[in-house]
Amino acid sequence: MFIYNHQLRVRYGDTDQMGYVYYGNYGYYYEQARSEAIRSLGISYKEIEDSGTMMPITRMNIKYIHPARYDELLNIKTWVPDLPNRMMLFKYEIFNEENRLINEGETQLIFIDALTKKLKITPSILLEKMKAFY
Amino acid sequence: MFIYNHQLRVRYGDTDQMGYVYYGNYGYYYEQARSEAIRSLGISYKEIEDSGTMMPITRMNIKYIHPARYDELLNIKTWVPDLPNRMMLFKYEIFNEENRLINEGETQLIFIDALTKKLKITPSILLEKMKAFY
Amino acid sequence: MFIYNHQLRVRYGDTDQMGYVYYGNYGYYYEQARSEAIRSLGISYKEIEDSGTMMPITRMNIKYIHPARYDELLNIKTWVPDLPNRMMLFKYEIFNEENRLINEGETQLIFIDALTKKLKITPSILLEKMKAFY
Amino acid sequence: MFIYNHQLRVRYGDTDQMGYVYYGNYGYYYEQARSEAIRSLGISYKEIEDSGTMMPITRMNIKYIHPARYDELLNIKTWVPDLPNRMMLFKYEIFNEENRLINEGETQLIFIDALTKKLKITPSILLEKMKAFY
Repeated sequence: MFIYNHQLRVRYGDTDQMGYVYYGNYGYYYEQARSEAIRSLGISYKEIEDSGTMMPITRMNIKYIHPARYDELLNIKTWVPDLPNRMMLFKYEIFNEENRLINEGETQLIFIDALTKKLKITPSILLEKMKAFY
Repeated sequence: MFIYNHQLRVRYGDTDQMGYVYYGNYGYYYEQARSEAIRSLGISYKEIEDSGTMMPITRMNIKYIHPARYDELLNIKTWVPDLPNRMMLFKYEIFNEENRLINEGETQLIFIDALTKKLKITPSILLEKMKAFY
Repeated sequence: MFIYNHQLRVRYGDTDQMGYVYYGNYGYYYEQARSEAIRSLGISYKEIEDSGTMMPITRMNIKYIHPARYDELLNIKTWVPDLPNRMMLFKYEIFNEENRLINEGETQLIFIDALTKKLKITPSILLEKMKAFY
Repeated sequence: MFIYNHQLRVRYGDTDQMGYVYYGNYGYYYEQARSEAIRSLGISYKEIEDSGTMMPITRMNIKYIHPARYDELLNIKTWVPDLPNRMMLFKYEIFNEENRLINEGETQLIFIDALTKKLKITPSILLEKMKAFY
């Protein structure tokens, strides 16, 4: 299975007056993790998009277990349980500096032809890179 | 049941280069809807917090059905299916200007004593306002 | 001179752990004020963009005088000191609920042809609406 | 003089529908650069705050020279022209991957006692680290 770990520093502006990372910011964290995971395959999200495929998110689920705080260096474990076809599921676990699991989530995306706006299957430039893991 | 409709204008900065509202911004939209829903009860989120109760989110699920675009005036229907006790569930449906359902979601929050950081039940100042609806 | 007042509610997610609106969020507030100011002229930012003109910001200056807090209803006074030509200057003053001046700023934008990416002068659809004020 | 270079990857969510980094997000970028600059001194923003000093921003000026785009690895050169006393000025220059200067800015912050909320001078834990550079 394709697994990737990305580290990310909590910004001051990501916190709210509770003193924790605002719950609405985790989608941004998942994006960073997902983007770096794909880059580790030797291809970038940007290259896929530039080749004519948009990848909108269709579903996101988040479970908030423990707060994240300013300046913490978070580790986001990202994995893709199944080889993508019409859709691609990413799962995430976020660990804080004490290696405590603080957040779990998943996002599902689909592939859209940038010109026709129609659904398509996983672009081959991405699929080829992933096959080795499944 | 307690239901509230909140209208909200999509900001330029909420969009991304796909030309749609970035998927990570819907938690902010839900917060605005939830906050105005509670205000319509005659009490504010801020007053509840000032009275010593924090309300962190423990779960969020989002289903993205259709893109939202810059400058659209969205209508967010918000409802609380059950009278809250240890936790409070909000459900959301977002409609665009053509009254098309574009997004569905839910958030669950818990009540925490601001001093002891321990779980508590729904503060009576909120519960009393809500009882009339159930 | 063209002056407009826009009211805006501070979101929870706009605050940081200092308990104030994060300094980096005021550009978003200015955008909302600017956008509603133009709408009050009977034309929208979106319509100008759809007619082929992009309006990137070239300069922003902000003076933070007093903190803004969660749930405050801010009043943003927006004005355009001069009839725009090659660039358009917006000035802002933000007042809190006690009518205290808490923030001053300005943004300058230019007009770019969306196709050629070349500088252009103020589109006539905007200029015509503004002339009455100068 | 104290100078630091920080690299930062543009997130998808940082862009807007013009296809560029939204102008309102640069304050976040400056914060990341400033925070890492201070960390390079052997002390963190968080430690200064935990020791009882808040550092609100009082002024920010930004000049937008050229757009930043999704996935670009930006280099933010940050420097502090003068040894801080009652206030601390940071200056920034952002360069894209082609080493083109795309943005210039500055932020000024003050030091506030977290308990009394009164102005104070630069905390000695920070000042001592900086003296070597001036």
